[in-house]
Amino acid sequence: MGFEAFWYIDLLGTFVFALSGALAAIDKRLDLFGVVVIAFVTACGGGLIRDLCIGALPPAGLVNLAYLGTVGLAVALAGFFQARLLRLAQPTLFFDAIGLGFFAAFGVHKVYSLVPDVELAVLLGVVSAVGGGVLRDILLGRVPVILSKDIYASAALVGALVQLTGELQWLPVHVSAWLGIGLCTTLRMLSLRYGWNLPAIKKAP
Amino acid sequence: MGFEAFWYIDLLGTFVFALSGALAAIDKRLDLFGVVVIAFVTACGGGLIRDLCIGALPPAGLVNLAYLGTVGLAVALAGFFQARLLRLAQPTLFFDAIGLGFFAAFGVHKVYSLVPDVELAVLLGVVSAVGGGVLRDILLGRVPVILSKDIYASAALVGALVQLTGELQWLPVHVSAWLGIGLCTTLRMLSLRYGWNLPAIKKAP
Amino acid sequence: MGFEAFWYIDLLGTFVFALSGALAAIDKRLDLFGVVVIAFVTACGGGLIRDLCIGALPPAGLVNLAYLGTVGLAVALAGFFQARLLRLAQPTLFFDAIGLGFFAAFGVHKVYSLVPDVELAVLLGVVSAVGGGVLRDILLGRVPVILSKDIYASAALVGALVQLTGELQWLPVHVSAWLGIGLCTTLRMLSLRYGWNLPAIKKAP
Repeated sequence: MGFEAFWYIDLLGTFVFALSGALAAIDKRLDLFGVVVIAFVTACGGGLIRDLCIGALPPAGLVNLAYLGTVGLAVALAGFFQARLLRLAQPTLFFDAIGLGFFAAFGVHKVYSLVPDVELAVLLGVVSAVGGGVLRDILLGRVPVILSKDIYASAALVGALVQLTGELQWLPVHVSAWLGIGLCTTLRMLSLRYGWNLPAIKKAP
Repeated sequence: MGFEAFWYIDLLGTFVFALSGALAAIDKRLDLFGVVVIAFVTACGGGLIRDLCIGALPPAGLVNLAYLGTVGLAVALAGFFQARLLRLAQPTLFFDAIGLGFFAAFGVHKVYSLVPDVELAVLLGVVSAVGGGVLRDILLGRVPVILSKDIYASAALVGALVQLTGELQWLPVHVSAWLGIGLCTTLRMLSLRYGWNLPAIKKAP
Repeated sequence: MGFEAFWYIDLLGTFVFALSGALAAIDKRLDLFGVVVIAFVTACGGGLIRDLCIGALPPAGLVNLAYLGTVGLAVALAGFFQARLLRLAQPTLFFDAIGLGFFAAFGVHKVYSLVPDVELAVLLGVVSAVGGGVLRDILLGRVPVILSKDIYASAALVGALVQLTGELQWLPVHVSAWLGIGLCTTLRMLSLRYGWNLPAIKKAP
């Protein structure tokens, strides 16, 4: 199994991230264009930063209509089934966790294939996974949620590190990928279930 | 007529965008440096993102003193004739609408000439036109206005699509350019005149 | 003396900038991951934008573990000695002023060596010095402080212009560098001592 088989999971990740962006934008009462922009940025923004940093131009998200189409579909669904989707928070979080793991693993793979540098691959793998959400929050005028709570970026970091074992050929690359995605998703879901958080540094009085 | 004749319109667009940035920054009581930065980012930020995404480095706005000079002129005028300019809202909006159309058409042309991909050209054409305003709003700590109201980015999208017909040689490129700029400007002005808005997706209760 | 000798000052600048980022993030009650991200962005963000604009990929800050290690050290110190560090505001500001001057001079040198354009070198020299702080403030949801008060970016501009005399071979490059760093640091410290500010353009009533 090559990374080609990841294509559908990639679109699934894009879809779920776009959905979360669209719901946040509707909540802020943006107009139709604003909702599409936020959904697109949430889904493709992390990969865009990654591609700019390794010079993989033009960025993948801007030249493949499948991404734009997937975002359009997510916006349409968010518009028509908003109330129902909000009740589905649990499954949405599950798909989001899968998307997180996949984007982290795929980001590491793309970066390490082009520029074989361990630090770069891990940093940009995490950026691939969480960058879109950070841009979404900046555009919506709030402090990026991933900076203040939940095991989220840390789960992406675990996924990225596991995928690295594949790039370094300690494990077959498809084993490391599924292992990384699985661990990241599991860690994320467990942290939600049990309310795990990273420690905060206590603020001096 | 080649795109060389567009040079003066380019500077006019830069000038008007810089003016709008400077007025917003003065309103926020930034210091002189802050006003120059916001004016420069508003005028050149969209083109900078575009150039980063197609690898046209260094970005045009950073290596041509004409842009910096135009921004300086706009800041000087904004400082000296602020009250008068605010009364001139109508003409300012008109020039802004022309700038919007031009940046969209020129953006599509530059991108398609370097990377002949239809989706990329249209997306980055719109980014050229509206990106500066988005960065201005992020720096000033507000949700980008184009995401929540008015026919603005949508007018840029129309201009970009019309210019595309020139790039694809369905129309002579200078016909498509003037047509795109004209349509974008007209659409924008009509939407202001009659209060047109894109529909918002109704927020679930 | 070549620019190799600047290596330790570079790390010192990185360290002090990371420290200021970490303290700001702790003050906002971010979690551990958030504090590391903000510290890293504050220290390496300016250089990252600079490297993207001149195509020096991958950006230096992402492929050299020394930077990440320095940031980690700064975060650890910020966590353990927070109260003491806040009492040390004066020395911190002094190191920050040195970092500012060094990043401006080093930025001009790196840019002009790769793309010998005067305007680009000066603009990106200033961006190297102040870009990280701007990104920090955007992520923390506040209007970048350098846009509204203090002689800060202007001191970086002075440092960048002085370094340019070295790049243009009007002065030996190591003379211009130390002169630029010295002038920038002095100007910044004097402005803090005497409360100097750039004039603001008076807002129309």
